[in-house]
Amino acid sequence: MADVFSFARWPPSLQDEQMSHLTEIAATYALSHGLTYLPVGQQPRFPAAAIHAPLALFPSPIPRDLFQLAHRLQRIYNVLYARIAMDNDFLDQVMGAVEGVGKVDEFVGQLWSGWKQLRDEGVEQTLHLGLKQVEFNTISSSFGTLSERVASLHRHLVSATAYYESSPILAMGNFPANTTTAGLAAGLATAHGNYSNPNAWILFVVQAGERNVFDQRWLEYELLEKHSIRVIRQTFDDLATSAQLDSQTSALRISRGDGPEVEISTVYFRAGYAPTDYPTPGHYQTRFLLERSAAINCPSIPLQLAGGKKVQQVLAQPGILERFLGDSSKEDLDAIRGSWMGMWGLDLLDEGHTNETVEPLGVRMARERSMGLVLKPQREGGGNNVYKEAIPKFLDELPVSERKAWIAMELIVPPKGTANYLIRSGGAAVRTEVVSELGIFGWALFGSGEVVKDAEAGWLVRTKGVDSNEGGVATGYSVLDSIVLVDV
Amino acid sequence: MADVFSFARWPPSLQDEQMSHLTEIAATYALSHGLTYLPVGQQPRFPAAAIHAPLALFPSPIPRDLFQLAHRLQRIYNVLYARIAMDNDFLDQVMGAVEGVGKVDEFVGQLWSGWKQLRDEGVEQTLHLGLKQVEFNTISSSFGTLSERVASLHRHLVSATAYYESSPILAMGNFPANTTTAGLAAGLATAHGNYSNPNAWILFVVQAGERNVFDQRWLEYELLEKHSIRVIRQTFDDLATSAQLDSQTSALRISRGDGPEVEISTVYFRAGYAPTDYPTPGHYQTRFLLERSAAINCPSIPLQLAGGKKVQQVLAQPGILERFLGDSSKEDLDAIRGSWMGMWGLDLLDEGHTNETVEPLGVRMARERSMGLVLKPQREGGGNNVYKEAIPKFLDELPVSERKAWIAMELIVPPKGTANYLIRSGGAAVRTEVVSELGIFGWALFGSGEVVKDAEAGWLVRTKGVDSNEGGVATGYSVLDSIVLVDV
Repeated sequence: MADVFSFARWPPSLQDEQMSHLTEIAATYALSHGLTYLPVGQQPRFPAAAIHAPLALFPSPIPRDLFQLAHRLQRIYNVLYARIAMDNDFLDQVMGAVEGVGKVDEFVGQLWSGWKQLRDEGVEQTLHLGLKQVEFNTISSSFGTLSERVASLHRHLVSATAYYESSPILAMGNFPANTTTAGLAAGLATAHGNYSNPNAWILFVVQAGERNVFDQRWLEYELLEKHSIRVIRQTFDDLATSAQLDSQTSALRISRGDGPEVEISTVYFRAGYAPTDYPTPGHYQTRFLLERSAAINCPSIPLQLAGGKKVQQVLAQPGILERFLGDSSKEDLDAIRGSWMGMWGLDLLDEGHTNETVEPLGVRMARERSMGLVLKPQREGGGNNVYKEAIPKFLDELPVSERKAWIAMELIVPPKGTANYLIRSGGAAVRTEVVSELGIFGWALFGSGEVVKDAEAGWLVRTKGVDSNEGGVATGYSVLDSIVLVDV
Repeated sequence: MADVFSFARWPPSLQDEQMSHLTEIAATYALSHGLTYLPVGQQPRFPAAAIHAPLALFPSPIPRDLFQLAHRLQRIYNVLYARIAMDNDFLDQVMGAVEGVGKVDEFVGQLWSGWKQLRDEGVEQTLHLGLKQVEFNTISSSFGTLSERVASLHRHLVSATAYYESSPILAMGNFPANTTTAGLAAGLATAHGNYSNPNAWILFVVQAGERNVFDQRWLEYELLEKHSIRVIRQTFDDLATSAQLDSQTSALRISRGDGPEVEISTVYFRAGYAPTDYPTPGHYQTRFLLERSAAINCPSIPLQLAGGKKVQQVLAQPGILERFLGDSSKEDLDAIRGSWMGMWGLDLLDEGHTNETVEPLGVRMARERSMGLVLKPQREGGGNNVYKEAIPKFLDELPVSERKAWIAMELIVPPKGTANYLIRSGGAAVRTEVVSELGIFGWALFGSGEVVKDAEAGWLVRTKGVDSNEGGVATGYSVLDSIVLVDV
């Protein structure tokens, strides 16, 4: 064994019988510990069965110093995104429907316009709650509780098999703790505690037919068992008829078929991040009703807008980061900047640009460097990005007016040759070269220009085969994973 | 609300929407907390999905004083059955193949004969471990860990819904704790601790295609996490080739495909209680090999024989109980006797009986009182009992030689009119009149005439519709349930 860890030699090799045994006990552990989804297909009225989530059999190696850096950055990001969400002028300019992304992206435009109207009426969320990852998802940060369970699974595999002594790296001391469930629930409970009525409930806004429901339920169980806070789950369709505001206090009340109406302290969105969640104007009106209410929205519309890819790209422009983190050390600002890949808007113009018939610099650069790039729209949830060789044709067909909605980002070049064994429900482990993505969860409660409280809340690793370009776990292209810290 | 609890008014009534909501959250909780089975049908090589166990939505009312009595009896039974298992003469007489049940019941005869041969060779288990319920199951006491989870489920329904304030009885203070997982694992760990090699593993002998696998896995996880003891699972078929004894020490060693062979400290049988587990003479030989080994068998063959229904019936005869519990108080003996229903062997003769052409008293009594009786053979696992109106025809066809293997037992007359809402995977709750059966788990480690250690280990409630006569949960006729203590 070399002293220096080699990514290209990961994972250690096992015999077929050993791999079969690992697969069997991993699948059984996942099924018994709620590391599960509902099955594919039409769901019965009452859940009948669960399948285990797609999983990596080995934890993925992450350099110890980078893991620590990611934690440090998370706390800075907590403050950064809270401040962006409280900066109306900035959001109007970058994401608004008059001069920003909202002008060309209808979804962003709808959200912004509804929010703008509330502001014009003098209605603003007094407190906002954000649950985030360092990759800047500010809404529906999913897989937190399942990630904690994958970390437990990999610890279980060590206890039960020691991974057949295949690597000295696979020792408990190299497996960092992961307490996302307690962490994320603490964020929601803190918001709840800042609401006027301690007997209010928390509203989970969910998608109909959601398969990733256990990930949400673990939060619900934690809120109930550790914080004695009750949760009601509703879709936007439900809320169209169930939600109403108190005309005096703007308290949000939800009527339900099985009991008296309940007052809501906090709205936690596990839906609402994609245009498909708003098939009619009425769905946007429901969102605006929640935003208008006295309940603390997680996220508020401005925080959701702050999570836009375009904001990320604007932040990378000179001087913008200082606008929000002027009180931070140069070291912190450098650390934040150092964590970014190069990025630019497709609408980036040459200096002194005047010729409208020439493609703007942003598009030209995207064509020239396409093989090292990904183009990202405002969408969350995966499935919309454009990669490498697909970029030139996409640019040919993209209407000029929509350029503003897209950013180009340099692709991360991950260590080559790292592999893993991936399993999906019922299947044998498949060895494949992989890329892993680390997310750090955090939350911040903020309002009136101040961050009231914030905390880090565990982490997430998603791993995908290198021949798969999309990162959304629920789409089946990638798997849930955990971390083994290595020294490189 | 009357001061005295009324069984006939249980459970409280709920509206349809309330029942639907309870069903949904109960099913979700069960699926996420491993209160599950593998699905019906052929199992894939690697488990792909789980369904939730059949469940009662309400806990079943048990009088507080009877629950306490059952606990007290459990400790006495621990000693009683340990002493029966150590009384070779008694077991030979009652269960042996020369003069006891083994003469007519081939399964019992096989087990007894193998055990007898080991004794003739001078081989006896030095320590025996029993995991038991008060209904005297001494092998494969299942549903312990799932029962703990049903108790948690009912607590969850209180936390999440307060059962819509439908009954003041449904308060946390009336829900007794249930820690079967820790309790049963402590029994196995105690046996393990009395074995010479602390690095040995525990062997779970399991059935192929077992659907109730999660109930077993929770014990395995507890042994690993709390006691750092590793478990290997094998069927009798596996063991035919994998098990071998050290010729010097009789240490039991199991070879396995995925690693070096392991030494076994304790054998925990979740198979071997039914003739179908022994389709060939070779399967019995495997059982005898395990019995011959230095590993502590849970149960040993004599303890399994002690659990026979016939033993239960013989114990009810005058003077027999005193033979085993001569050092117990009259109060304890009366309490034990008071817990029995009337029972007799079909081979019971009239005093001074001489006429071979007349049916023996046991059979005649069974005919006369058939509507209040159940006939039980030596079989475990349900599906073999003969009830009420089916008894006369059964007696007509029963060969005279087999009478010795059957006992008649008065049917328990449960409180009339108690109902519950039962759910099965994917289905809506069905209201039905029910009967509930309480079991108390316990364990005892004993040998050389002494009980080394024993403890109570939680409880189990099985509930079935009154139109179903069989009690085996896994057959789908009944559901897992828990307790709400009531004062009557």
